[in-house]
Amino acid sequence: MTHRNSTPPPSEQWLPALGWLRNYRRATFSADLTAGVITAILLVPQGMAYAVLAGLPPEVGLYASVVPPLLYVLTGTSRAMSVGPVSVAAILVAETLATTGQTAGDENYLAGAILLAALSGAALLLLGALRLGALANFLSHPVLSGFTSAAALIIIASQLGNLTGIPLARGDLWRTVEGLATHALDANGPTLALGVGTTLALIGLRGPLVRLLSRRGMSQDKAQLLGRAAPLLLVILTTTAVATLHLDALGVATVGEIPAGLPQPTLSFLTNPAWRELLLPAFMIAFIGYVESVSVAKVLARKRRQKIDPNQELVALGLSNLGAAVTGTMPVAGGFSRSMVNFAAGAQTQFAALITAILVGTVTLWLTPWFYYLPQAVLAAIIIVSVAPLIDLDTVRESWRYDRADTMSLAITFGGVLVVGLEGGLVLGVLLSVALYQWRAAKPHIALVGRVPGTEHYRNIHRHRVETWPELLLIRIDESLYFANAAYLDQFVANAVAERPQLRHLVFLMNPVNHIDLSAIETLIGLTIGLREAGITVHLAEVKGPVMDRLQESHLLTELPPGRVFLSTEEAVQALTQA
Amino acid sequence: MTHRNSTPPPSEQWLPALGWLRNYRRATFSADLTAGVITAILLVPQGMAYAVLAGLPPEVGLYASVVPPLLYVLTGTSRAMSVGPVSVAAILVAETLATTGQTAGDENYLAGAILLAALSGAALLLLGALRLGALANFLSHPVLSGFTSAAALIIIASQLGNLTGIPLARGDLWRTVEGLATHALDANGPTLALGVGTTLALIGLRGPLVRLLSRRGMSQDKAQLLGRAAPLLLVILTTTAVATLHLDALGVATVGEIPAGLPQPTLSFLTNPAWRELLLPAFMIAFIGYVESVSVAKVLARKRRQKIDPNQELVALGLSNLGAAVTGTMPVAGGFSRSMVNFAAGAQTQFAALITAILVGTVTLWLTPWFYYLPQAVLAAIIIVSVAPLIDLDTVRESWRYDRADTMSLAITFGGVLVVGLEGGLVLGVLLSVALYQWRAAKPHIALVGRVPGTEHYRNIHRHRVETWPELLLIRIDESLYFANAAYLDQFVANAVAERPQLRHLVFLMNPVNHIDLSAIETLIGLTIGLREAGITVHLAEVKGPVMDRLQESHLLTELPPGRVFLSTEEAVQALTQA
Repeated sequence: MTHRNSTPPPSEQWLPALGWLRNYRRATFSADLTAGVITAILLVPQGMAYAVLAGLPPEVGLYASVVPPLLYVLTGTSRAMSVGPVSVAAILVAETLATTGQTAGDENYLAGAILLAALSGAALLLLGALRLGALANFLSHPVLSGFTSAAALIIIASQLGNLTGIPLARGDLWRTVEGLATHALDANGPTLALGVGTTLALIGLRGPLVRLLSRRGMSQDKAQLLGRAAPLLLVILTTTAVATLHLDALGVATVGEIPAGLPQPTLSFLTNPAWRELLLPAFMIAFIGYVESVSVAKVLARKRRQKIDPNQELVALGLSNLGAAVTGTMPVAGGFSRSMVNFAAGAQTQFAALITAILVGTVTLWLTPWFYYLPQAVLAAIIIVSVAPLIDLDTVRESWRYDRADTMSLAITFGGVLVVGLEGGLVLGVLLSVALYQWRAAKPHIALVGRVPGTEHYRNIHRHRVETWPELLLIRIDESLYFANAAYLDQFVANAVAERPQLRHLVFLMNPVNHIDLSAIETLIGLTIGLREAGITVHLAEVKGPVMDRLQESHLLTELPPGRVFLSTEEAVQALTQA
Repeated sequence: MTHRNSTPPPSEQWLPALGWLRNYRRATFSADLTAGVITAILLVPQGMAYAVLAGLPPEVGLYASVVPPLLYVLTGTSRAMSVGPVSVAAILVAETLATTGQTAGDENYLAGAILLAALSGAALLLLGALRLGALANFLSHPVLSGFTSAAALIIIASQLGNLTGIPLARGDLWRTVEGLATHALDANGPTLALGVGTTLALIGLRGPLVRLLSRRGMSQDKAQLLGRAAPLLLVILTTTAVATLHLDALGVATVGEIPAGLPQPTLSFLTNPAWRELLLPAFMIAFIGYVESVSVAKVLARKRRQKIDPNQELVALGLSNLGAAVTGTMPVAGGFSRSMVNFAAGAQTQFAALITAILVGTVTLWLTPWFYYLPQAVLAAIIIVSVAPLIDLDTVRESWRYDRADTMSLAITFGGVLVVGLEGGLVLGVLLSVALYQWRAAKPHIALVGRVPGTEHYRNIHRHRVETWPELLLIRIDESLYFANAAYLDQFVANAVAERPQLRHLVFLMNPVNHIDLSAIETLIGLTIGLREAGITVHLAEVKGPVMDRLQESHLLTELPPGRVFLSTEEAVQALTQA
């Protein structure tokens, strides 16, 4: 993928940080510092919230925001991506551990999340070693859109219990909706007020606060960035309110005691016997996290003419996840919205992420007691407001207008995720989109051509007035041939031949063919032998050099004679119409 | 698929028999009569043998050779294909009913086989109604080869017990091998002698008998056809031997009493509650039978410039299988070797199959008592000798030389069938071959092009000496764009742009692009917006008419300005290098 004249030296290939560190300048530093602070302000409440979403204690989300991003800082190729806890990985962890029979709060639950991080890291490193970054390409845009929309719905549903104070068992969407309907009157008043109030404030503050600030003379950009501080502002406000008004005594669930400091590094996940059943889910978490990360990294890189190395990203995210496991936390990835904030705040290099990690680390070491009275409902509101934009109606609308096959992929993935779960739904969507593509590719462009009179140009006989010959048929194959489209060629030739009783020679014009697989070779051999018995000789013309080299290895050329391989169509026509 | 000027009238489309009946001639009749008789001679022992292979009483195979082929005679589009019991469908029936906990000989076992025929028939009719004949294209040649080779091995193993008289429990390959090794000394002498003797005779008679006959002045073709009578000859010889020498008293298992006559038509399968668990296996049986049938039908049609309608074949085989269910027998398909014999014996139309059905029907009605002393070991030998040629080492060798990806598909399918079973192995092979194809297709041909000096021709800059411009880049996209290859384009552009700091304009030359899916559109939009922020304008040139129509429905054209859509590359170069 990299070009000869732009491959970085080996040291930089493994530690891309050396690239930007070498030319680091003062102006860049101040931009990175600002961005790092703003991202940290966003990350502290978000990190705790995503840990809760995963069914884990809030501090685990803070741990995930310290060491893993530092490993990415050194090894990642994106300049502005923010690695840490992300919502989709969090809900996948929750779903996985629930289906393997763990209950949030169990001793094994955290160990399971750590093991998922370790296995995800190992899977990413393995894919990186095999240079399989292109695996992400199997995920089409409509499938990804359907998946994230459904995941966002599931995430929102999972937070409604915390938001309202209604005691809901964790479960699927339907059970949540049913539980809400049945127990609507059990909502805790103060919790509901805090939850709904925070949600409305988070939605409202984005627009009006930004407008207010910019009307007071602040630049639009700066005002929008300050709007990003809204979550932390609301955390401080509501925590203070709960502490001073003793709302916890009225039934408002709070975060409670959070141990200060980072956990001791551990390798205990190595002896966790659950790895067999967590291997496949870990692979899914790794894959989805990787796709999310690379998407955002590409979007950001394009804006500044920078490059992403998808295979090095596998390595960097693999190391970050191993780092997550060693420091006792959940799987991580590059978060979409957080990275956009980091970029918009001016992050030029991963130095910004270093600042963020130091700040979150500081909070984790000394400031966690301050969050004792932080209401769970506020975290739920933060989660709901951050994932709601993932519900992507634009792509539904656009795909409906553009291509019904894409709409079907999107709808099946969305429905699949809601009905059979996040992982099953995604697998279904990927398989369906690949099948739909194959289905379409099974009808290659093939044209009967004839000569434009007085020239050596050959054109489609159905679109142009051209010369044809009763004893000679020229068939232009416009695409590479492989097992799924060879049968169409076979059928096309059978129909064309059945209509032309005088036919003696058939020439395949192969210039547009870049590749032929063994099944297609067999089809061509079958055609050659079968048509010979029917008195028709098959010839080839304009075969590309690399394809000709491959054909030498097959039986096709030995079965062809008396059929010939002509260099040009004109040569074939001259030879076969003189006879 | 059919051409305007060759579409048959509607009556013939549904009853293709009307086509050949209308022009039926005396010469054709005598050819069809010979072929019908020869195929019947082959079919009687083969039909009984395949029923035994499926774990069913031998007469069930005779039933499958009467009514189902008659339905195909009326509705099929192949002139020489012989529909009836086939080995692969038989082993699939045995495997399916074994895994659903049935034991051969149980009352429910035959009912299960009948239900499988009914469900297969329904599945084929459904696919036919949806015009989904192209589904067969998903089965690549190497996957089919690996599948049939492994199926042949499993079939041979399943017959070793009957062949040797060693009492083996039906089971997988490993248990059979283990059982043979353990109980080798329990072989029944007379059975072993009959079984091995018949096997050797069947193999030996093919060559020497044919040579002998042709040396005596018989034509090579006729001698070979007479060689086809060898199975019936051996059936008569060994049956007489057992009856006269009372070998059954020495432990030679015989077919025993076969009820004469055809069974009453029944619809009892409609109320069989097992349909839920048999639905998926029935679909597999239908699919595999269909692929086998269409392959042989195409091979035969090609030799006589005839046409096959793959969708009508779905209907015809669907009706044949429903007919099989109603007449109380197992699933049917077009048999490969039997159809080749029918063709070689001179069959011109399905009238030959009508003769065959009448002859087998006659045997079934009146002659079944004659088979009382027919040894099971002889049927086992017939099965083994007919399926042994399915072990296809040629394709292994050829794929190894031609394409390792194809070899991998073949090997995985073969191993998968042996390890996880016939159906699982086939699904594995199909998924793998599709994935390998997608993997390869994920790297589309893309070239940077420049102008051949003094002309308006544009060529790859890496292959030709051409003019280029520092502020303008021309990228020719040589294939249709879709989700799996769009990321490669993205990466290619990112690399090209990162190396060219003076770049201001980028033009995509789209002439070879036949289709763009929504994911690729999103990639192009992302490139356009991202590169604009980097000071580069994206343009399009040479967009094909139908593609342009689709682009009108997308956001790409609204995001493009100030980028433009140029008719020709030259026009783009003129406009963008003057500025």
